Amino acid sequence: MSFKIEQDNLTYNTARPCLSLKKKIMRRSAGLLNSLKRTFSTHVSDNRLDALRQAMTSSTEKIDAFVIPSEDAHQSEYTAECDNRRAWISGFTGSAGCAVVSQDCAALFTDGRYFLQASQELSSDWQLMKQGMPKVPTWQEYLVKNLPKGSRIGIDPALMTIDNATALEKELASVGSQLVPVQENPVDRVRKDRPKRPTHPIYRHNLKYAGKNRESKLHDLRVTLTQRGYDGTVVSALDEIAWLLNLRGSDIHCCPIFFAYCVVSREDTVLYVANADERMSSELRAELDAHVQIKPYDSIWDDLKHQNASNRRFMIDPTLTNLSIVQALGGQDKVGLEPSPVALTKAIKNEAELNGMREAHKRDGVAVSKHFAWLSDQLRNKRERLYEADAVQHLEDMRRQHDTYVGISFDTIAATGPNGAIIHYNPSPTHSAIIDPQQMYLCDSGAHYIDGTTDITRTYLFDGKPTDFQKRAFTRVMQSHIAVDTATFPPGVTGYQLDSIARQPLWKDGLDYRHGTGHGVGAYLNVHEGPHGIGSRQAYSKVPFKQGMVVTNEPGYYQDGEFGIRLENVLIVNESKTAPYHFGGHNYLGFEHVTFVPFGRRLFDTSLLNEADRTWINSYHQECRRVLEPQLVNDSRTLKWIEEETEPI
Amino acid sequence: MSFKIEQDNLTYNTARPCLSLKKKIMRRSAGLLNSLKRTFSTHVSDNRLDALRQAMTSSTEKIDAFVIPSEDAHQSEYTAECDNRRAWISGFTGSAGCAVVSQDCAALFTDGRYFLQASQELSSDWQLMKQGMPKVPTWQEYLVKNLPKGSRIGIDPALMTIDNATALEKELASVGSQLVPVQENPVDRVRKDRPKRPTHPIYRHNLKYAGKNRESKLHDLRVTLTQRGYDGTVVSALDEIAWLLNLRGSDIHCCPIFFAYCVVSREDTVLYVANADERMSSELRAELDAHVQIKPYDSIWDDLKHQNASNRRFMIDPTLTNLSIVQALGGQDKVGLEPSPVALTKAIKNEAELNGMREAHKRDGVAVSKHFAWLSDQLRNKRERLYEADAVQHLEDMRRQHDTYVGISFDTIAATGPNGAIIHYNPSPTHSAIIDPQQMYLCDSGAHYIDGTTDITRTYLFDGKPTDFQKRAFTRVMQSHIAVDTATFPPGVTGYQLDSIARQPLWKDGLDYRHGTGHGVGAYLNVHEGPHGIGSRQAYSKVPFKQGMVVTNEPGYYQDGEFGIRLENVLIVNESKTAPYHFGGHNYLGFEHVTFVPFGRRLFDTSLLNEADRTWINSYHQECRRVLEPQLVNDSRTLKWIEEETEPI
Repeated sequence: MSFKIEQDNLTYNTARPCLSLKKKIMRRSAGLLNSLKRTFSTHVSDNRLDALRQAMTSSTEKIDAFVIPSEDAHQSEYTAECDNRRAWISGFTGSAGCAVVSQDCAALFTDGRYFLQASQELSSDWQLMKQGMPKVPTWQEYLVKNLPKGSRIGIDPALMTIDNATALEKELASVGSQLVPVQENPVDRVRKDRPKRPTHPIYRHNLKYAGKNRESKLHDLRVTLTQRGYDGTVVSALDEIAWLLNLRGSDIHCCPIFFAYCVVSREDTVLYVANADERMSSELRAELDAHVQIKPYDSIWDDLKHQNASNRRFMIDPTLTNLSIVQALGGQDKVGLEPSPVALTKAIKNEAELNGMREAHKRDGVAVSKHFAWLSDQLRNKRERLYEADAVQHLEDMRRQHDTYVGISFDTIAATGPNGAIIHYNPSPTHSAIIDPQQMYLCDSGAHYIDGTTDITRTYLFDGKPTDFQKRAFTRVMQSHIAVDTATFPPGVTGYQLDSIARQPLWKDGLDYRHGTGHGVGAYLNVHEGPHGIGSRQAYSKVPFKQGMVVTNEPGYYQDGEFGIRLENVLIVNESKTAPYHFGGHNYLGFEHVTFVPFGRRLFDTSLLNEADRTWINSYHQECRRVLEPQLVNDSRTLKWIEEETEPI
Repeated sequence: MSFKIEQDNLTYNTARPCLSLKKKIMRRSAGLLNSLKRTFSTHVSDNRLDALRQAMTSSTEKIDAFVIPSEDAHQSEYTAECDNRRAWISGFTGSAGCAVVSQDCAALFTDGRYFLQASQELSSDWQLMKQGMPKVPTWQEYLVKNLPKGSRIGIDPALMTIDNATALEKELASVGSQLVPVQENPVDRVRKDRPKRPTHPIYRHNLKYAGKNRESKLHDLRVTLTQRGYDGTVVSALDEIAWLLNLRGSDIHCCPIFFAYCVVSREDTVLYVANADERMSSELRAELDAHVQIKPYDSIWDDLKHQNASNRRFMIDPTLTNLSIVQALGGQDKVGLEPSPVALTKAIKNEAELNGMREAHKRDGVAVSKHFAWLSDQLRNKRERLYEADAVQHLEDMRRQHDTYVGISFDTIAATGPNGAIIHYNPSPTHSAIIDPQQMYLCDSGAHYIDGTTDITRTYLFDGKPTDFQKRAFTRVMQSHIAVDTATFPPGVTGYQLDSIARQPLWKDGLDYRHGTGHGVGAYLNVHEGPHGIGSRQAYSKVPFKQGMVVTNEPGYYQDGEFGIRLENVLIVNESKTAPYHFGGHNYLGFEHVTFVPFGRRLFDTSLLNEADRTWINSYHQECRRVLEPQLVNDSRTLKWIEEETEPI
C-alpha cells in the first residue's frame, strides 16, 4: 500500500539527542514541536514578509492586506507541505490559525492551545493575537475594525469557503472595505522553494471493505440530485471523493486521500486528478473507465465555466466548497447551497464498513496492549530510560506487525506528566521528554488498516502512588466516559445534546475539559470526519445520530503544568439493546464500543464509583480479556499485563 | 387585590351534573373542555364564516384569504376574550392553533395535543389540519402551496410578530403571492358581540417584593439604549411592562398584568393605557407622575409615527413586537432588531424577588399539603365521591386561606387515571371525572401571592396497588427530576443543554415525554416567562443560565388512555454548593429547589434507585418536614399525611 510507504518515510528517527539533553526531562518546550516544524526555521526570515508585501503592492488587484488561512483548497484539516502557506510566511507551525499581512502590520491569530508555541515561533515582526482572550478581535473583526476603512482585503478564493467569504464580505462592506479575490496567491508567488503538490499512487479500496460499489454510490447521488432538481454537484472534500469512488491515496500526512475534484452530473462523473496515468495501475484505470472520466486536476475550472455557460444548476455545500468553484459556476445565484449529501451518506456506515471497523479495532487493541505491556514492564523494572519518542516508535512497530496495517491515522500523542496537559502535544522524534513512571502518562494514537481506522486514548500511572486529586479526576473522567458509552436516546437526538450528559460527572466536581467529547471517524479514511460529533459546536446540533455512524468518546481533564487525563474509545451508533420500551413507536439508539484495551485499575477512587459504574468497568474489562487473549496466546508479558489491569474492582 | 376579585369571578360552580352523568366516570371527553369553552357554542354557526368571507370581499385591501392566529397584539400566551378571534370564528377553543379562511376553504391548524378536541369542536365547514402528521403542511406552507399562486393573503399586522411576518412574506413571494396587512381586522368587524377589552384596576407592586424601584429599572434600560446607540424602545409584552413599572393588574385570566404599551426613550417614559384615571388610585397616579407620562392606549400609533418623523432610532425585539409597531416606526430599516433587554433583566431575579419566591413557595407547600392530606383522607376512607372539579375547588380554598394569596396562576390540572395522560387537561367545573382512588392522580397547579408565583405538580396513587410498569415509570420520572435538581454546570450552559440530562433516566428505558422540561416563572407575574427554559426549543439554546433565574423542573411520562406522571418543583439558579473545584476559574452553577411538598413513597420501585437517588429523596423529604411542620401545628391530618409520605425509603 502506497500509504504505508508514505508512512514509512515518516518513520521517526530513533537517533537520540546528545547526552546533556537526554539528562534533562524536557517538559513543555518539547511538546511544542511537531512534525511540521521540521520544514521551517523557528523564526522565519523577514525577507519573506518583505517579499510578500512587495508582491501585494505589485499585484494587479492592488490589495492593502492579504489573508492567509491554514486550509487548502479542499478545506482539509491536515495539509500537504505545498499548502502550508500560513506556516511558511509566519513561522508558526500549529494546526490552527490565520495570518493577516498589510504594509504596516503582520498579525497571527490562534487559539489558547497554541499561545505559548506561537509566542516562541513568531519573530518580532509579528503580532500574536490571542483569540478568545478579552478584547482580542477575531481576524475578521480585525479586518473590519483595525484596518483603515475602505481597505481592499485580498483573499485567495480557492482557500476560503463560500460561507466564510460571504460573511466576511458583508462585514467588510459595513466599513466600506472590500473583499478582493486575487488571481494568483502572492504567498505562492514569493515562495520560491514551494514543494510540488504530491502525486502519490492511487489505489482501489476493496469492495469487501467498502461494502458498496462506486456505481451504486454514484447512482444514489444522482437520485438525490434529480430529486432536488439539480443538474450536478462538485465534490471537493478529499475524503468524500475517496469514499465515493472507492479509491485511496496518500497525498496528505496520515490521511489515505489524494488531491482531486469530482464533478458528478446527471449524465457523467469526472475525476479531476493530476498524473492519473502514472498514479493508477492500468487495471484500475480500466475499471474506472466504465463510470468515471479522468481529466487533469486543473482542468476543472474551464469545465465548470462551461457548465455555467450551459445554465446547469449545481448543488454546492457552502461550508466545504471554496469560493473559486462557485465563481466558476457563475456565482451564488446560479447554484443551490445545501449540505453535502456525500458527507452524510459516508458517515452512515454499511455493515461491511462496520465489520471492518470492528475487526480493525480488535487488531489494534492487540497492538496497543502489547505496547503498553512492554512500556509498563520497561518502566516498572527500570530496564532502560525511555523517551516519549521511543514509545511512539514502539507503538507503531507493534501496529505494523499486522498485514492489514497501512499507517498511523494522526501523529501519536505520547505525553508524560505535564505534557499530558497540552491537548495537542506531539513529541518530536529528536526532542522529547523522558517518561517518568511516577507521573501520569497519556497516549492518544490511531492507525489505518485496510478495513478500518482506529483512535484510542489511555491514561496510566506505571509506578508510584497517585494523589487523591489525580484519582478523583481520573474517576470522574471515567464516569463521563461511561455516561456516553451507556447513553440511550430516541432518533433525532444530536451530539450537541449528548455533550452535557458526558460532562455532568466532571461538572459536578467543578471540573471540565476544553475540547469536544467526540468526532466522527472514517472507515479507512480520515480519523476526523463530519458532519456529526459530540460537543458544543453549533454544527453538531444540526445532525441527529443515525444507526451506523461512528463516533469517538473521549472526555478528559487537564491540570496545567501537572498532568492530563483522557479516556477514549470508538463507538458505533446502534439500536439500544437495553431499553425495554419504545415510547413514540421507535427504537431507541445507543452505542456499541469497538475499542478493547484495559483502562487499568490503579487510578480509580473506588469510593466515588456507584454500583452501575463498577459493573460497567468490570464488564468492559471482561470483554477486553475475551477479545484480546485469544490473539495473544504466546505473549505471556501482554497476557499478564491484561490480567492485572482488568482484575475486577 | 383586584386580581383576586377577577379570580373569584371564575370560582368553579360546585353544582353537580345530573345523577346519570355522575354515575359515569367521564374520561377523555371531560378533559377536552376548558374554561374558554363556556364562551362558544360547540359548533360555531356558519353565519360567522359567511360574514367573514363577505367582509373579506368588501375589504378595501381585496384579500383572497385571511389568517387568524391565536395571539393578541402583545403576543400573550393567555388572551382576553375580546382577543379570542380564532376560537370565535372556528369554534376550536384549544390554546394553540391558527385558522386560514379563503372564499373556498376554512382550515384550522393545531398540534397533537388538540387533535381530538378540535375534531369535536369544528363544524363540517372546517378542515382540521393535524400539524406534525406526515404530509400535513404548516399553515405557512398551506398559504404557499395550497392556495393559488399570486394570492393576496391578509393578516392583522397587530397580531403577527415582525419575525413571523418577515418569514411569511418571503415564502409567499416565492409563488408570487403577497402578504397584505389589513387596516381593520375583518373578524372584529363581523363579531358584533365582541366583548370590550378589560380595564380592571391597576395597582402598585410593593417595592419590598419588587426589590428595585421603577426609576432604577428605567435608568438601567436607558443606559442600555444609550450604550447601543438607540433613542428608544417599545416595550409591548405585558409582563415586561408590569415588571418595568412595578405595576400589576388583572386584565388576562390568571395573569397579573394589564393591557398597555410602554415607550421608553432617552428623555421620557410613556405608558399607553386605557382609562388610567379610573383604574389607578390617585395616589398611584401621583407617584407615577414623577417618571411616567400616561396616555390613552390607542394614542401610541400617532406618537410612534411622530418618532419616525423625527428620525429617531428604536430598538425592537422582532420576536415579541407586532408588525404594526415597526410599520408606525417607518419599517424594519428604521429600527434595530435585537432581543428585548427587559426580558433578560426581568428573568434574573434580585434578592427581594428570590426571597419572595421562597416565602410564597413555603406558604404554597402548606396549602397544597393540606389539600392532598384532605383528598387522600377522603378517598382512602371513601367518605364521599369526589369529582376532579371538587379537588380543584378545595385546593383553591386552601390557598385562599393565606392573606397574601392573589389567585391561581393557571387553570388547575387535576386528572384521574387516563385524564392524566392528556397533558393540557383542565377539568370543567360542570363536567369532570370522579376521582378513582385506585388510579394514578396527577395535579399540576399554581398560585400568585403578592410576593411570588408558584407552580407544582405531584402524582399520587391514593389506594390500591400500582402496576410494576407504573412504579418503573414513576421512578424513572423521579430520577429525571433528581438529575435536573442536582445538575451542576459552568457559566454559559443553556437549558437546551440540560434537557438531555433530564431525559437520560427515561430514555434509558425507552421512555420520554413530549413537552419541555422546564420554563421560567415570573415573580408575582406570568407563570410562563422567557427567555430561558429547559427543553429542545432552539430559543433555549440562545440563553445561558444566570444566577437568580427561576425555572421549573417537570419531567413526566404519559401512557395514553391509562395514566400520566409529572413531578414538578420550582428551582432557583444558584452557585453550586457541592462542586469542590473551579476549573476555568469560575464558580459552577446549580439549582436550589424552593417547592416543598412530599413526592410520596408508594410509587417507587426501590430496586431501581441507587444510593444517591435514595439519599436525595430522603433528604428532600426531611426538608419538607422541616419547612412544613412548623406551619401546621394544629393540623393533625396534614401532619400525619406528611409523616407518612416522607418516611425514609
